[in-house]
Amino acid sequence: MKAAVYYGPNRLEIDDVIEPEPGPGTVKVKVGFNGICGTDLHEYFAGPIFVPTKPHPLTNRQLPLTMGHEFSGTITAVGAGVRGWSEGDRVAVEPIYKCGRCQPCRAGNYNVCQQIGFHGLMSDGGMAEYTVVPADMLHRLPENVSLELGALVEPMSVAYHAAALGEAGAGDTALVFGAGPIGIGLWFALRGRGVEDVFVVEPAATRRQAIEALGAKTLDPTQSDVPAFVSDHTAGAGADAVFDAAGVTPAVRTALACVGSRKPMVSVAIYERPIETPLLNLVLNESRIQGSLCYTAADFEAVIELMAAGIYDTTGWVSRIALNDVVGEGFEALHAGAKMKVLVDPAI
Amino acid sequence: MKAAVYYGPNRLEIDDVIEPEPGPGTVKVKVGFNGICGTDLHEYFAGPIFVPTKPHPLTNRQLPLTMGHEFSGTITAVGAGVRGWSEGDRVAVEPIYKCGRCQPCRAGNYNVCQQIGFHGLMSDGGMAEYTVVPADMLHRLPENVSLELGALVEPMSVAYHAAALGEAGAGDTALVFGAGPIGIGLWFALRGRGVEDVFVVEPAATRRQAIEALGAKTLDPTQSDVPAFVSDHTAGAGADAVFDAAGVTPAVRTALACVGSRKPMVSVAIYERPIETPLLNLVLNESRIQGSLCYTAADFEAVIELMAAGIYDTTGWVSRIALNDVVGEGFEALHAGAKMKVLVDPAI
Ligand SMILES: [Zn+2]
Ligand SMILES: [Zn+2]
Ligand SMILES: [Zn+2]
Ligand SMILES: [Zn+2]
Repeated sequence: MKAAVYYGPNRLEIDDVIEPEPGPGTVKVKVGFNGICGTDLHEYFAGPIFVPTKPHPLTNRQLPLTMGHEFSGTITAVGAGVRGWSEGDRVAVEPIYKCGRCQPCRAGNYNVCQQIGFHGLMSDGGMAEYTVVPADMLHRLPENVSLELGALVEPMSVAYHAAALGEAGAGDTALVFGAGPIGIGLWFALRGRGVEDVFVVEPAATRRQAIEALGAKTLDPTQSDVPAFVSDHTAGAGADAVFDAAGVTPAVRTALACVGSRKPMVSVAIYERPIETPLLNLVLNESRIQGSLCYTAADFEAVIELMAAGIYDTTGWVSRIALNDVVGEGFEALHAGAKMKVLVDPAI
Repeated sequence: MKAAVYYGPNRLEIDDVIEPEPGPGTVKVKVGFNGICGTDLHEYFAGPIFVPTKPHPLTNRQLPLTMGHEFSGTITAVGAGVRGWSEGDRVAVEPIYKCGRCQPCRAGNYNVCQQIGFHGLMSDGGMAEYTVVPADMLHRLPENVSLELGALVEPMSVAYHAAALGEAGAGDTALVFGAGPIGIGLWFALRGRGVEDVFVVEPAATRRQAIEALGAKTLDPTQSDVPAFVSDHTAGAGADAVFDAAGVTPAVRTALACVGSRKPMVSVAIYERPIETPLLNLVLNESRIQGSLCYTAADFEAVIELMAAGIYDTTGWVSRIALNDVVGEGFEALHAGAKMKVLVDPAI
């Protein structure tokens, strides 16, 4: 079968590889769509970072590997001992390998497992016609959730998990910094959680227009004084929750000037270096910065439920490409900012 | 009477001023001791910062003012309408003026009141023989709590409030960065709250020795790899709570490398500028930075109760001086690092 195999920086090749077959406790999935995310870009342009160069403790795998950890598909074969899943079931895959023994795993926070692995970074993933996954990674897709939406469950769960850590609810005001895929996911998740008053702060006009077309209110931080606007809008109280999905100094500085007392700025960005952070803002109103990483099964289930309820819309920000075009129309186009979210379709 | 009156930067004068008498709802306090803190130093050397140069909305007062917001004393006269307090009562004063109407006040967090004022910064304070305070600022000192300890209730409440925000309890491991008065207060507060396993991280040998003499375990960050030590000590889990009472870049960087997943670094420092903060650390284990400011009445009561139980000890870090010597033996000596905590005794 065809697969996009990662060999190291700037080396992702469409290879003919042996079709995998399910062993005990695993299922074989015919991939519907597989998304490309920022982590994949980092591996391609500056890696290997997460992809192991010696056997990973949980998967025993290393370079070269088939990439792709954001995917949906249809089960085509079921391994020995797997209960509750059958050929033809449509699924989204929660791609986390966890140790089950560390302090975070024991506390139920396996998203911060000390040995965490990802299917598609530490094992052969979804940029292929087929992939084999442990049955405990599977989440069932309802009939009215397409395989296209199914491939977005993973990144939308990253955003949903962060939205939940923001602890905002009906009647609250939230701010999202950055209108990339995670920012868009935050906007959907907040609305799904009943937060109607959300402003998305984004300097790039094309990104503002994309999320405005979905119905979002936006602010251009190069044109308006965002903290002054938020102060006015909240009668001086500040925002109930602020989300940094931009990961750059101006966003952090502005976000911390907007957050209300005893309220959080949730960080859901991969900061490439330390950020000049006005910690005095946190002290003066007892606000906080809360990190957010990945998701757990509850986030996957919540997102799938909201997708079934019609909350998510891919219009204007999701493109599809063929597996053969993954480098040029996928990695290169994303890197150049020409596309926002790309789904690879291994069937074309 | 004698009072230390602040006129502006480098101008603190021992003046003969009119002895104040209590109006309705207030009491006259004969000051026992009044501590000098970092905020006072900032006013003296770089102010006015908090001291208002136009009438403060809650006190209607401005420069010049008698300094001093950390004090104990004995009631000598009671104004009209004051119930529950009599001449001779020994008190610690919680020096916060609050608006009562803003969002934080309504939520019970008047320590972050949007119009907050302090007795001794926005009104005539405790560096004087007498001061008049609203009766709702009073906390009764038990017989076995000295007026010397009473003057330390305010700074110890700053630390206790931060300790409570750390959410650590029996069996947990905590780290305190900085062994100044707030760091010492954190060490007492954590022990008072049942956290036995506390390490104080401090590069200055004299400060380490002072807190070691009180019984603390210390780490010298210039000699030992603190994150490696903490990881070993906690079987890889990291500290349950970390406190930054140092306010400098190396402390923040090291603290965030020590904090466990889903655990806090509590910031209880006045950061003079933005700090290069490795926010990626927060993301990767979902830890957080929580700001802490001042205290509320519950913190005052908790500290007084722990003082009555014998938890606090002033040996080796608290000095007493006469009011006449407040500049040389107080502000200048503290600024030079020659003393840690100075209590002004207006009776000598
Ligand atoms: Zn991803
Ligand atoms: Zn684990
Ligand atoms: Zn103070
Ligand atoms: Zn208020």
